[in-house]
Amino acid sequence: MSATIFPAASFAELRARLNDLPSTDVRSIAAARVRQDNLTKPQGALGRLEELAIFMAGWQGCERPVLKRAQAVVFAGNHGICRQGVNPFPQEVTAQMVANFRRGGAAINQLCRISGADLSIIPLDLDLPTHDFTEDYAMTELEVLDAMARGAASVDTNCDIILLGEMGIGNSTVASAQARALFGGTAWDWVGPGTGADAEKIAIKARVIEAGIDRHKQVIDNPFVILAAFGGREQAAICGAILAARMARIPVLLDGFICTAAASILAPLGIGALDHCLVGHSSAEPGHRMLLSAIGKKAILDLGMRLGEGSGAAIALGIVRAALAAHEGMATFAEAGISV
Amino acid sequence: MSATIFPAASFAELRARLNDLPSTDVRSIAAARVRQDNLTKPQGALGRLEELAIFMAGWQGCERPVLKRAQAVVFAGNHGICRQGVNPFPQEVTAQMVANFRRGGAAINQLCRISGADLSIIPLDLDLPTHDFTEDYAMTELEVLDAMARGAASVDTNCDIILLGEMGIGNSTVASAQARALFGGTAWDWVGPGTGADAEKIAIKARVIEAGIDRHKQVIDNPFVILAAFGGREQAAICGAILAARMARIPVLLDGFICTAAASILAPLGIGALDHCLVGHSSAEPGHRMLLSAIGKKAILDLGMRLGEGSGAAIALGIVRAALAAHEGMATFAEAGISV
Repeated sequence: MSATIFPAASFAELRARLNDLPSTDVRSIAAARVRQDNLTKPQGALGRLEELAIFMAGWQGCERPVLKRAQAVVFAGNHGICRQGVNPFPQEVTAQMVANFRRGGAAINQLCRISGADLSIIPLDLDLPTHDFTEDYAMTELEVLDAMARGAASVDTNCDIILLGEMGIGNSTVASAQARALFGGTAWDWVGPGTGADAEKIAIKARVIEAGIDRHKQVIDNPFVILAAFGGREQAAICGAILAARMARIPVLLDGFICTAAASILAPLGIGALDHCLVGHSSAEPGHRMLLSAIGKKAILDLGMRLGEGSGAAIALGIVRAALAAHEGMATFAEAGISV
Repeated sequence: MSATIFPAASFAELRARLNDLPSTDVRSIAAARVRQDNLTKPQGALGRLEELAIFMAGWQGCERPVLKRAQAVVFAGNHGICRQGVNPFPQEVTAQMVANFRRGGAAINQLCRISGADLSIIPLDLDLPTHDFTEDYAMTELEVLDAMARGAASVDTNCDIILLGEMGIGNSTVASAQARALFGGTAWDWVGPGTGADAEKIAIKARVIEAGIDRHKQVIDNPFVILAAFGGREQAAICGAILAARMARIPVLLDGFICTAAASILAPLGIGALDHCLVGHSSAEPGHRMLLSAIGKKAILDLGMRLGEGSGAAIALGIVRAALAAHEGMATFAEAGISV
């Protein structure tokens, strides 16, 4: 399916292919809503669970959606901006954490096991960090398109839902820069501690983001160019995976601040490119709330987490499972013979 | 274990037995915190999950707590206050929903299956509603103590966690009356739609609660007497189950507004009787937030649910499972050979 979008030779070619994205199925939504209203509970009493069941019905195109297979994809990348001292961890940690994912020792391994998701780890040229965005475009157009295509290719189109996550030392600075470029404000509105930056490092983050905005301000009227200017390969891959999932009408569960900032590149295109995306959790990273507001999404969970790796998406998958289990398994008032 | 508290012949005898409740194990808490700080993530990055793992460690008395068996107990009762027209559903629905629980057709059945909890349904004299609290005590002292003892006896002390829930047409009015009596304000601060009361029915709720407060105002300086004045058997049973779990150092997951209001009877005793209790979710019922604030608890989830039956506790169990899976399964920085 993703072959209809990728590979693309230019941003213009990619953009032209996005004008007719598949949309949700209104008949299945209507049927699922009728079912919810007849199940043995006061109407609306399952709150967000009812909305999630109806959302899944719309994208799967059936009254009773299923979750037989869930795939979590974690993209990893390295970032030239690290040379500005934005992160307390050395850049080797990205590859070390990829090794930890592969050995099963990270949070995301445990959380995928608990929530029943298969985990794919996709490191993207970790030995080739992007350029320092205060000095140049972080990536060329072709590098962006290549990473997007690799993201798209990582999606298993036999899945019922895709969870997206990321790992990359320095990428909370990248995310804040993207949000600043896409939605305005000042860098201070979007920076936060990330993996644990202190006040001094947060000030460095804000300074390098404003320097980056100043460097690129003439050219960032196009979201894909913002991705080239500031993004990393994992951000581009997330965009590619979201589009590939959409072509296959597979719902997507985004993770926290960095993942949402990557996805937000697709928001200003004005084509509803994130309509099939849920946001798993509201991150403790302070910019996430404003980012969710900017793209009109409400996170499922708010557990004070700020880890990345897809961890919030993996936990939220359990809530989607609960929603579908109630939708599928509950008796109707008529079946249960209850007085209404 | 609960034999040390129940049966009790009077509220005074019960109260005297509660002076030396088991407490959390500070060594296990310290050990669990050290472990969390060494796992492969920035310190604190798992937010509430870290707190939950440490909480469970304290009550289970071990660095790495487990969840082999979870028991959900749903108590059902009927309420004399229904004759005042506080609920849009007829009172027979309580027994019909108990039958639905037993056939596996309710939300709680699906949610317990998903979260791996065994479900116990305990109907309490459904053919003997309590008295109308605007005219008399809802229950006698002995009826309260009997229901508490039955609640305590329903706890399987081989469990690693107990989830509590309730069903009873009219019991959101009972919960609001309890909250009003325990924590003040006016009835209007504590009433809400419950199973779906319209504005007219909500006004009836507020009026009957103020009438009840007026009827009992001379005697409600004792929380157990508040339970007798307004409560139903399911509220008393929830209190008994909480105390029985505490004697066995088993953590408790409370559900929403009605379950929390029942548990709140134990809060003003000043003995930390709810220290082993978590609250699964913040209900859409408007009084729940104020109630959580009054007892100093922060709910795990906020999904706009207002169903009862233990449904919010069952979903929150999945979050506790995720917390323990991360705590148990993650590698430390040293094990993973990561640069810190």
